[in-house]
Amino acid sequence: MELFNEERANELLKNRIRTSDLEKLEYNKEVILAGWIENIKKMGKVSFIILKDRYGEVQLTLREDVIGDLSFIDELSNHTFLVVRGEYIKGIARKWKEVLVKELYVIGEIAQPLPIDPTSSLEKRLDYRWIDLRNDRNSFPIILTSDFVRYCREYFYSNGFVEIFTSKILGAPSEGGAEVFEINYFNRKAYLAQSPQFYKQMAIVAGFEKVFEIAHAYRAEPSFTTRHITEFVSMDVEIGYITSHHDVMDLLEDLIKYTMKRIKEEREDDIKKYYNVEINVPSKIPKIKMEEAYEIIGKDEIKPNGDITPKGERILGEYVKNTYGEDFFFLIDWPWTARPFYHMKGEPMKDGRETTRSFDLIFKGLEIVTGAQREHRYSVLLKQVREKGLNEENLRFFLDFFKYGSPTMGGFGFGIERFIRQLLEIENIREVVLLPRDPNRLLP
Amino acid sequence: MELFNEERANELLKNRIRTSDLEKLEYNKEVILAGWIENIKKMGKVSFIILKDRYGEVQLTLREDVIGDLSFIDELSNHTFLVVRGEYIKGIARKWKEVLVKELYVIGEIAQPLPIDPTSSLEKRLDYRWIDLRNDRNSFPIILTSDFVRYCREYFYSNGFVEIFTSKILGAPSEGGAEVFEINYFNRKAYLAQSPQFYKQMAIVAGFEKVFEIAHAYRAEPSFTTRHITEFVSMDVEIGYITSHHDVMDLLEDLIKYTMKRIKEEREDDIKKYYNVEINVPSKIPKIKMEEAYEIIGKDEIKPNGDITPKGERILGEYVKNTYGEDFFFLIDWPWTARPFYHMKGEPMKDGRETTRSFDLIFKGLEIVTGAQREHRYSVLLKQVREKGLNEENLRFFLDFFKYGSPTMGGFGFGIERFIRQLLEIENIREVVLLPRDPNRLLP
Repeated sequence: MELFNEERANELLKNRIRTSDLEKLEYNKEVILAGWIENIKKMGKVSFIILKDRYGEVQLTLREDVIGDLSFIDELSNHTFLVVRGEYIKGIARKWKEVLVKELYVIGEIAQPLPIDPTSSLEKRLDYRWIDLRNDRNSFPIILTSDFVRYCREYFYSNGFVEIFTSKILGAPSEGGAEVFEINYFNRKAYLAQSPQFYKQMAIVAGFEKVFEIAHAYRAEPSFTTRHITEFVSMDVEIGYITSHHDVMDLLEDLIKYTMKRIKEEREDDIKKYYNVEINVPSKIPKIKMEEAYEIIGKDEIKPNGDITPKGERILGEYVKNTYGEDFFFLIDWPWTARPFYHMKGEPMKDGRETTRSFDLIFKGLEIVTGAQREHRYSVLLKQVREKGLNEENLRFFLDFFKYGSPTMGGFGFGIERFIRQLLEIENIREVVLLPRDPNRLLP
Repeated sequence: MELFNEERANELLKNRIRTSDLEKLEYNKEVILAGWIENIKKMGKVSFIILKDRYGEVQLTLREDVIGDLSFIDELSNHTFLVVRGEYIKGIARKWKEVLVKELYVIGEIAQPLPIDPTSSLEKRLDYRWIDLRNDRNSFPIILTSDFVRYCREYFYSNGFVEIFTSKILGAPSEGGAEVFEINYFNRKAYLAQSPQFYKQMAIVAGFEKVFEIAHAYRAEPSFTTRHITEFVSMDVEIGYITSHHDVMDLLEDLIKYTMKRIKEEREDDIKKYYNVEINVPSKIPKIKMEEAYEIIGKDEIKPNGDITPKGERILGEYVKNTYGEDFFFLIDWPWTARPFYHMKGEPMKDGRETTRSFDLIFKGLEIVTGAQREHRYSVLLKQVREKGLNEENLRFFLDFFKYGSPTMGGFGFGIERFIRQLLEIENIREVVLLPRDPNRLLP
């Protein structure tokens, strides 16, 4: 048998079915399959190849009495791509459906020996991400991310949202100025957007009433935790004519319930199989005020600016799980000292500390969403910029949005990878990302 | 009447309806509306305000005998946002539905005098994009873009595609090296992706069979044409196990027909109203070979590398329109000298020149898509890198994708803004973009 015949291979590929399509077929049908070699068992006059595609695996049976001399098998190697024609037979393998091969060709070239195996370190696996992802468990977070954003869009589309594409190239370092990547923009300095915050607000000022964007955002944080990456997918939502941050939370709660229900419907079995995790659709997302949270977590987990530590988030997560049986909760009414200048101020705490009309959404003890009502009054916004001691000139373009009328507005930014990480209870967020970027990693 | 009462305004906002909802109501119902002032007509004891939201306009009638002294109108200005309670009345205005105002409050603050008007230059309008987009004609391309990507996703979702998010931060200047923005990445040089080309191919090598991405791509071209922007939305598609570039064109033709049909169903009237353009759903997209195209356009429109000029594209567009009555056509089998190293080579031209298995899709005389079958054989790909005289080291990470087995593959990159520009027959592509970026423009 000749292993290489491009013309004939192409002819066969035209009628290729997926391995998972075998389920629908009767035995003794002729089938054409394509995929890569997961394993080769050479056993003399009968040999076996496990062929895999994205949808499953099948055992190819090669018999000398059917296709002649089997010595060509020595040339094959794992992960070489094949197209085969054969007969779908009942076979004796328990784990796999079986195809008796009549014709077999290599697609492209024979694969070189693989540089990683299932025991390789995460770093090594990420170096060879395209091989790593041929494993179904490893590719599942990528597929679930695709599903999740699809469910989110279903929700947005059926609720009258407009999808926007905001510029990621900013003329000024916007939110603070630290932790921002600098771009050489025709010999001027420009900056990669840390979030579409200012521009989604601009869309609302421009008269769009409900907008969303699902796109990359960039943080130049030199962090090496299992929760941080420098390039992440942010789902950003902004709505106009709101009356408080509770309107924004209502929307987010609705979205979470809808998407969790969809995930449960479509992916419960896969999530159980690959990650051994149960899907718990929230019935009601509890709200905890920041000043109540302080009492639950204790002084050690409160940062000087009023924010709480990652450990504090986990303590609250356990408290909510024990008290309400829920994986999600809103942490609301954050102190002004812990929030950005554009959050609207709210009712003061009992001890008189200023708060904001803001919230985080915590999922299994980790913050995955930050949201707020925004300050839409130009004069008040300007005051808040000065109060925070920020560079007014850098923020001028944003401040100007509010000079010529603005409705009330609010919204949130939702970390997609963090959500998937928490959902699947994966230790390292890098496993959720197709091509993770951290301070050291720029390749592949 | 007091113009400012935040508490009461919020109370009203809770029950606000859209101006377009009036159509469904009977006269003499109480309604609450919110939006901005398009116009004020002060006429003594009866005055009028045209109130606008994203969905329409309504005439507010203010009568002294209903709400008392009308002198507060002097304080109002165009584009100030209001919330009003009133009675939906039959009225006498022909152009607008009418609401007799009972209560009226400013949302936020009074708008300052507007810096632009409908006669302002495009540059000035873009400087104040958030005001410019309050005009329905100006915001329409943004809304149509949202619709179009929605229709595309409908198509992808129902055809088994996985949505991917590829990194936009590259460790090496990939395609050529020129026209790429440089990033300061923790004191190392990194580069903004010109396209997700290499990574969508990686996804196919990784065993995903059909992937798409709709995301920004970046070109540091110092061009000031009406067709170029430095940041654009690219719809990228890649599929595995193909047999030639014709498989990719089949997919694209299907996608174009589906989305054009959806646009016609949902937006034909708006497109006629705002841009006076007819929607012409293709029945069959013709294919013209490059060597045939050369004969049609004549020598002057052929570039030295075998590419054709923008004028050449327009000539071919007219030829196709006259011959087939179609707005779209595929220009196929491009010469190797005009295509990147990763395109697979095809059958030579009659004169012996090498070609590629590639195509462009031309829409109303402008290229909006480039596609091809990719070279998936490591040894051939390496040869092609060398043949083009490219930096092998910069491309090493990409070449390595093909060492460990690869299926055949092909795909395309689709310029979303160019498509919308051509569809609406808009002169300047900047009008299609929420926040256009060119060599001079980084703001807002």
